Amino acid sequence: MTRKVSIKDLAEASGVSVTTVSQILNGKGDRFSDETKRRVTALQKSLGYVPDFNARNLIMKSARTVGVLVPDIANPFFSIFIKGIQEVARKNDFVPIIFDANESQQLQSYLEELIQRAADGFIIASATIDRDAVDTILKRNEIPYLLFDQNAVSEGDRVWIDDEEGGRLAAEYLIENNHKKIVIVAPENPTENIIRRISGFKEVFAKAGNPIKDDDIVNSEVTKNGGYHAVSQIIEKDPTAVFTISDEIAIGIYRGLKENGYQIPNDISVMGYDDIDIAEYVTPELSTIHQPAFEMGQVATELLVNRLKNRKLQPQYKKLSLKLMKRRSVKRLED
Amino acid sequence: MTRKVSIKDLAEASGVSVTTVSQILNGKGDRFSDETKRRVTALQKSLGYVPDFNARNLIMKSARTVGVLVPDIANPFFSIFIKGIQEVARKNDFVPIIFDANESQQLQSYLEELIQRAADGFIIASATIDRDAVDTILKRNEIPYLLFDQNAVSEGDRVWIDDEEGGRLAAEYLIENNHKKIVIVAPENPTENIIRRISGFKEVFAKAGNPIKDDDIVNSEVTKNGGYHAVSQIIEKDPTAVFTISDEIAIGIYRGLKENGYQIPNDISVMGYDDIDIAEYVTPELSTIHQPAFEMGQVATELLVNRLKNRKLQPQYKKLSLKLMKRRSVKRLED
Repeated sequence: MTRKVSIKDLAEASGVSVTTVSQILNGKGDRFSDETKRRVTALQKSLGYVPDFNARNLIMKSARTVGVLVPDIANPFFSIFIKGIQEVARKNDFVPIIFDANESQQLQSYLEELIQRAADGFIIASATIDRDAVDTILKRNEIPYLLFDQNAVSEGDRVWIDDEEGGRLAAEYLIENNHKKIVIVAPENPTENIIRRISGFKEVFAKAGNPIKDDDIVNSEVTKNGGYHAVSQIIEKDPTAVFTISDEIAIGIYRGLKENGYQIPNDISVMGYDDIDIAEYVTPELSTIHQPAFEMGQVATELLVNRLKNRKLQPQYKKLSLKLMKRRSVKRLED
Repeated sequence: MTRKVSIKDLAEASGVSVTTVSQILNGKGDRFSDETKRRVTALQKSLGYVPDFNARNLIMKSARTVGVLVPDIANPFFSIFIKGIQEVARKNDFVPIIFDANESQQLQSYLEELIQRAADGFIIASATIDRDAVDTILKRNEIPYLLFDQNAVSEGDRVWIDDEEGGRLAAEYLIENNHKKIVIVAPENPTENIIRRISGFKEVFAKAGNPIKDDDIVNSEVTKNGGYHAVSQIIEKDPTAVFTISDEIAIGIYRGLKENGYQIPNDISVMGYDDIDIAEYVTPELSTIHQPAFEMGQVATELLVNRLKNRKLQPQYKKLSLKLMKRRSVKRLED
């Protein structure tokens, strides 16, 4: 089996220096004759030589990758978010390197690995990232990044979604429909965005004189399976409505409730959060708060690319809106 | 803002050569004194120096990444497949670089980019890859890879799933349940694994004296939305059962059928393929063919790592089994 074709091989075959080959292949070969340029590019093809990007990177300093860290690619919210990133990355000739980092030990090592690959920048939607890691590693190495799910650790660029407002919208909708006995389903150690969601939700019920108690909160992983296994606890508390901080949990709750003979929304209402695509495909269609996942990915990438083009830019800030999706999983109770 | 800390900076601060720093940081510093090693590593931390992996790579030739190309990360089958890859990659200190390449033009440019990053190997589950691209680029550059969804282009390593057998299992199940009028829902330009699935399915019906006709096949993208929009064509053909080559399509069909007043399985049976996790969370639970997505990812990565450790290994081959999941979406018709 032939060994990997090197730039030296190509230079020898072309009868020119390595520097000449490098310049021609990098589009900086104006000073060479057409004949030389033709010979080099023709030999590049027939030898199957692919420039070692690492070598090129050392000269050109243009790694053109954006590292993307998400907590869980199996959560449809994040796969759509990634597609938004990819769309803008593609237009700007960036290659996204995607990471599923749902164990915090991994995240640290991934971050170092990604920096070591000289990624130009990062979009980090993993809330498990240690702030010290961000400060030390990314800042000292002058690597721009955008963090979601955290309050401004960075004085830098920011894409903002008002999770408290999302929680408020969900609560207001349930109150409008006369729900008074609520269970919230959320993870045991919620990330900051989820904490804000719950806080906004509770605030509305508190103002309505019907505060949510700690006992009204059931823990579940942010997965269908988690929601499924939370159902017995939910049923024990006999709520009229369940608010889940993620549609994934709601899907699991649907299954558990149905297996226990409960009808949605006749016996119990379910309110989700995210508006992942499956929300319209379950029965009954899930009422939820729409997060613009695709647009979040697009905007995060746009801001990052702007920053990479001009490091001196003023901090960029963009706020994206949430929307209440009234579908069929929340029933109006009698006044 | 400080510029990125270089190996030269660290060498200067430590009072040693760049080579010395490199060897110490790469665990090859046995010949240096403890004091020197301590000084270098302490300064590394306080300066926040992260070895430029690219520089290290040129010396060490150990990029430690595996490029993963999938057609669509939004399809839960592939996100689970990726999780299998990640599990084995992590154990072997490889970092998977994930690519969603559902447009074939992209794939070509991604492949070159990934090679340029000196990825050690590839796992390619994207059937749109041009065989010439594989032959020319990957082989000549001595880069091991594993292809799914294609017959052996590679004389190399292979993870094999018997899609024809999967199609046969699905067909036999429908025939056992006395279904005679079938619609198959599949994409217009199916990949090879899907072609084999359909072929196995049709073979069983042909042998039973009830061949599937071209007219019994409805086209749909491999998405929920595609399945949803295929329903009017399905209904027109008045089948007793629908076989979809992917659960994602089945989920869409569920919605369309329900919106048109059809009950599953009472009015029409639905058979899926993949056994993505949502299959147990929809109503009725979806009967389908289980593909071991996670295991496929694990095994692909194991074989690739073996190959990377020993290029001279005999071609490796592993076959994984499919399983018929009898759930609640297929009704037994009267004999």
